[in-house]
Amino acid sequence: MKRLNLGVIGIGRMGRIRCASIASQIPAARIRTISDFAADGLEEYARSLEIPAVTDDYKTILEDREIDAVLVCTPTATHVDIAIQALKAGKHVFCEKPVDFDMAKIRKLDEVWKSTDRKLQIGFNRRFDHNFARIRENIISGAVGDVHVIKIVSRDPAPPPLSYIATSGGMFFDMSIHDFDLARFLSGSPVLEVYAAASVLVNPDIGKAGDVDTAVVVLKFENGSLGVIDNSRQAVYGYDQRVEVFGSKGLTLTQNDLPTQVQVWNSESIHSDKPLYFFLERHMNAYIEEMRQFVDAVLFDKPVPVSLDDAIMANLIAMAVQRSVAEGRQVRLAEIADDQHPGRAGITAPRCL
Amino acid sequence: MKRLNLGVIGIGRMGRIRCASIASQIPAARIRTISDFAADGLEEYARSLEIPAVTDDYKTILEDREIDAVLVCTPTATHVDIAIQALKAGKHVFCEKPVDFDMAKIRKLDEVWKSTDRKLQIGFNRRFDHNFARIRENIISGAVGDVHVIKIVSRDPAPPPLSYIATSGGMFFDMSIHDFDLARFLSGSPVLEVYAAASVLVNPDIGKAGDVDTAVVVLKFENGSLGVIDNSRQAVYGYDQRVEVFGSKGLTLTQNDLPTQVQVWNSESIHSDKPLYFFLERHMNAYIEEMRQFVDAVLFDKPVPVSLDDAIMANLIAMAVQRSVAEGRQVRLAEIADDQHPGRAGITAPRCL
Amino acid sequence: MKRLNLGVIGIGRMGRIRCASIASQIPAARIRTISDFAADGLEEYARSLEIPAVTDDYKTILEDREIDAVLVCTPTATHVDIAIQALKAGKHVFCEKPVDFDMAKIRKLDEVWKSTDRKLQIGFNRRFDHNFARIRENIISGAVGDVHVIKIVSRDPAPPPLSYIATSGGMFFDMSIHDFDLARFLSGSPVLEVYAAASVLVNPDIGKAGDVDTAVVVLKFENGSLGVIDNSRQAVYGYDQRVEVFGSKGLTLTQNDLPTQVQVWNSESIHSDKPLYFFLERHMNAYIEEMRQFVDAVLFDKPVPVSLDDAIMANLIAMAVQRSVAEGRQVRLAEIADDQHPGRAGITAPRCL
Amino acid sequence: MKRLNLGVIGIGRMGRIRCASIASQIPAARIRTISDFAADGLEEYARSLEIPAVTDDYKTILEDREIDAVLVCTPTATHVDIAIQALKAGKHVFCEKPVDFDMAKIRKLDEVWKSTDRKLQIGFNRRFDHNFARIRENIISGAVGDVHVIKIVSRDPAPPPLSYIATSGGMFFDMSIHDFDLARFLSGSPVLEVYAAASVLVNPDIGKAGDVDTAVVVLKFENGSLGVIDNSRQAVYGYDQRVEVFGSKGLTLTQNDLPTQVQVWNSESIHSDKPLYFFLERHMNAYIEEMRQFVDAVLFDKPVPVSLDDAIMANLIAMAVQRSVAEGRQVRLAEIADDQHPGRAGITAPRCL
Repeated sequence: MKRLNLGVIGIGRMGRIRCASIASQIPAARIRTISDFAADGLEEYARSLEIPAVTDDYKTILEDREIDAVLVCTPTATHVDIAIQALKAGKHVFCEKPVDFDMAKIRKLDEVWKSTDRKLQIGFNRRFDHNFARIRENIISGAVGDVHVIKIVSRDPAPPPLSYIATSGGMFFDMSIHDFDLARFLSGSPVLEVYAAASVLVNPDIGKAGDVDTAVVVLKFENGSLGVIDNSRQAVYGYDQRVEVFGSKGLTLTQNDLPTQVQVWNSESIHSDKPLYFFLERHMNAYIEEMRQFVDAVLFDKPVPVSLDDAIMANLIAMAVQRSVAEGRQVRLAEIADDQHPGRAGITAPRCL
Repeated sequence: MKRLNLGVIGIGRMGRIRCASIASQIPAARIRTISDFAADGLEEYARSLEIPAVTDDYKTILEDREIDAVLVCTPTATHVDIAIQALKAGKHVFCEKPVDFDMAKIRKLDEVWKSTDRKLQIGFNRRFDHNFARIRENIISGAVGDVHVIKIVSRDPAPPPLSYIATSGGMFFDMSIHDFDLARFLSGSPVLEVYAAASVLVNPDIGKAGDVDTAVVVLKFENGSLGVIDNSRQAVYGYDQRVEVFGSKGLTLTQNDLPTQVQVWNSESIHSDKPLYFFLERHMNAYIEEMRQFVDAVLFDKPVPVSLDDAIMANLIAMAVQRSVAEGRQVRLAEIADDQHPGRAGITAPRCL
Repeated sequence: MKRLNLGVIGIGRMGRIRCASIASQIPAARIRTISDFAADGLEEYARSLEIPAVTDDYKTILEDREIDAVLVCTPTATHVDIAIQALKAGKHVFCEKPVDFDMAKIRKLDEVWKSTDRKLQIGFNRRFDHNFARIRENIISGAVGDVHVIKIVSRDPAPPPLSYIATSGGMFFDMSIHDFDLARFLSGSPVLEVYAAASVLVNPDIGKAGDVDTAVVVLKFENGSLGVIDNSRQAVYGYDQRVEVFGSKGLTLTQNDLPTQVQVWNSESIHSDKPLYFFLERHMNAYIEEMRQFVDAVLFDKPVPVSLDDAIMANLIAMAVQRSVAEGRQVRLAEIADDQHPGRAGITAPRCL
Repeated sequence: MKRLNLGVIGIGRMGRIRCASIASQIPAARIRTISDFAADGLEEYARSLEIPAVTDDYKTILEDREIDAVLVCTPTATHVDIAIQALKAGKHVFCEKPVDFDMAKIRKLDEVWKSTDRKLQIGFNRRFDHNFARIRENIISGAVGDVHVIKIVSRDPAPPPLSYIATSGGMFFDMSIHDFDLARFLSGSPVLEVYAAASVLVNPDIGKAGDVDTAVVVLKFENGSLGVIDNSRQAVYGYDQRVEVFGSKGLTLTQNDLPTQVQVWNSESIHSDKPLYFFLERHMNAYIEEMRQFVDAVLFDKPVPVSLDDAIMANLIAMAVQRSVAEGRQVRLAEIADDQHPGRAGITAPRCL
């Protein structure tokens, strides 16, 4: 069996999730080198996973001819540069989301990528969740008939640090963007217009930082169907990730995954488990499946399941949503796309407040 | 025990629901006379419920001094006239919804009512559903903390006849209006702005008749919380009435009532019952509870649970929603209220398409 | 529409349940007279339900030629005498369970009944529960294939007073007997053998009174299928009435009915409603349906849904179960039936401890 | 970090489950050598998991001084011999269940083990299922109060080949034995008496082979609480593993794990996923957790979670249950233990039919 040799660039939280899942669950791939500018204990970490080499210079990875593909898990601002270098070095690339906030930079990456024959996959992990994947199967199989309404509930258990919000692009870019991608994945029809209502209800400091923490987003798809996403930075009962698709032949929905199927019935009420706490608990299987499909795409020259175009579209929706909140109106995606045309000045993730 | 003597005007579908539930479940009230201009078999129907008198002229009821209160269950266009005559005749009044589409007529009723000391209750039955009532208790008790998002799913099992749509005021007036009232009931905070996206996905003839059959409505409440309602004229699996309220301390939601709690597990899947078919099945208990509270309000001089103001506010929201769809924008409720000022021309339920 | 005239004898708890459900929900029947030896406020009670006559002598009812059928809701020890007099007086009879503990007396009733053409129905209400009725439909329709195992959970929310236990025949006669009947109703195959394990775990005073409060009963049916019943006098979370039938093509089960379908999700757990508190809450619909079918059987000369034979078989099972506990062995039903032969001395509900 | 070196003897189905879970999920252990008398493709299998050595003679493993512990995954008849040799060679031992059917052989193993200071763990994996482990926590935490009834549903999706039944010891030994162990694990109180009713309802050939395919087993524990197990060889909807524990303060139960939390609502019914198909799907996490605890017990000199005594007790219960079915009576465990005394002839898994 041929095995894919990987280099992982950036050993922060996501980098470690990638390393751990590949080491334990992706027999078709082997991590050859990991790199991080400054991570403490990098060598020890590598040994614990039997990864043979570490470096503090990612170029070592790009120059290693034994390495077939790289995972770009560095801070967002560096994604495009490193991905471009990696593609030019002949590597296949898996790049975490968001690719960037600057559409001009993303377009640059797109150009470079199109000049190569390498695979480029973007890390929208939620498509690979077993529940959401089943929802999509139920749409494709015709079980719900023509899709009329797609509803997504997406709530984090607790807000990120304010420092994170300052650089993340705000809730619509760091959190809802997964939902925008999921909506596109489920619908199959292009988003034409968006409307969003948003508030600061969880923590006023989030508002002071120019962001919102609670939102309802409406999407109009080209085929006339509608989408609704509701987001919150803080669901005290845990990570809440539910989807409901309503159509002409019925409805398909998914509940949250729970740690156990155990109940307690007592004199007070019937008690069941809360949802799994956060994305690590809920989506670990999705991270594995996502990586498995990337490895497959490279090894067997298949299309990648999430392309750069998908990332571009999710970014455009996030921009349109921010504008909708800022201007209190429905916004056509075409407006944003026009503003983003190469001939114009790039808009880099305008804040909505 | 004092018993309330009632007259019921209009023995169509709703009139019969009222008569049946009073006869069997409201021992504190007794129907003395029912009237209908033209109903076949009215006498036989009265006998079956042991109602002593029938008439084809509702004025007989208004003139009967033994009758304390009347139920106005006639076609919408006649509600205001009959209710005004009844109030003037000294009767307490229970009036089905919608009171009327013409805000000027409603204001007239309001004036007359304010000149009396009679009770006037409007038939928004859904507040009395055992599930929705519990949701509200969970809000009031503080179980969900501050309310952030109120979500209502409201889908009928099948669209009404096109002829009904032609006079009903359209989906937002004949169907969603219940959801507008429910959202107000649950929130307690005034609605400031609305936005709606709507489509014709169920039946193109509905579109030709100037109406929509699928919609998502967003509400912004004064306290910053958000509301989302999604409506469809046709859920093939039955009447779908679910509510979810998300807040700072957690979430409360209600599933649909099912005919039984029985499951079948076989080689294909786990099967459970579909929701109860339609409002008669789902809300019969709510109809009874609603009437019980009206009878109580009259007998013991308590405030009615649904006032004319509630009906006015629901109408204003429906108008704003229609305008939002027609103009593709967010609409402030104040705009509608201004347009409806006595000094101006009344707008009577403009169609959104 | 012909209406059945009823007399109700014994206006204790069950008598009142019968009166209330007939008055409000059975338009095809009318209660003409109620009788009770000593009930306080009997006249006022009758007035509240618009029942025209009361008496302290049930013979007044038996002699009233306008009365078609009587309900025998008196203490168990008087059931047989009154039922026999009523049948002899030409009345149809609905008799509460248990008919009696003395098989000889029951056989006497059987003889008298067979000499008339009157209807005699026994009050095993649980067959009429919407969930259990659906379970049976799922068996009859073939949805579960050949039945292999029938499982019944039956737990009361709290034990009855010790004084009640002293005369009730014990847990197997006053409580489990419903489950024995339900097992027969669902199986359709005769019970051949029983085994029971029982303990006193809820309250030691119940043991001192010669009874048990916790039991597991195994039934072997003639067709090889098996039954399991588990009973407890005290489920602190409320009345627990669940059934599960497992067969060659799958399984059908019923959960408990809950007051609402509402959940609360908070930082502690997901909370749902407890089951309805007790039989009045859970089985009110069953009481109505049971009476409706009795009235139908009389009015339209149909077979009654629960016969005296059903009561005899449930009694025999209860006796066999008591013997199994007392002797620590499997007991054939035929043993009990032999002991109960007319030629022998009757065994009246031997206590198991 | 110290890592445990393991040898795995027997690379059939269970051996492979062990190898795969250790390789991917137990970083604290490393498989040094695997052995199988005759497995095809053993070397290739080893390479795929990066296991450095293979052998067709398990003695090579026993003689390897670098190996700390061995897993005995061979056919049942060889368990005791190999385990004894391994203990004598100074290895810690993990032995699959059933250890053996011959109590004399098991006692021999017990003697040898007691003469060493090595760990000996038996493979009752079900204790490590996340759901069942939580049930136990709910008992230990006092959430259900004093335990009154323990109920276990345990049904396989399809019967094993008849050839397997011929050597497996029959359903009570190859299947129910897990439930006997689970009942002991949950109760904490010794089993005093058992009763079982059993039938051949799935396949008459199973009966011809001297076994049963459907059973209900009642257990009486020393503390007065009761246990009920129901087993079937064939649940067409998949592996059915549910537990319910009822006590003085309430009830705790577990539903089955499902592949997804997705539902489809259509005009027919509400559809949910069937349970996971079989033990590999349902209990993979349990296999991992079980092995993790074995590795921990050895590395940190902790007690093993499942001892040989546990295996002996489960065997005694299985024997008593077989005798109960054969003789149609309640059987005291003490009877079996007496029969099995060293001074008497050993009884090796008497068939019940």
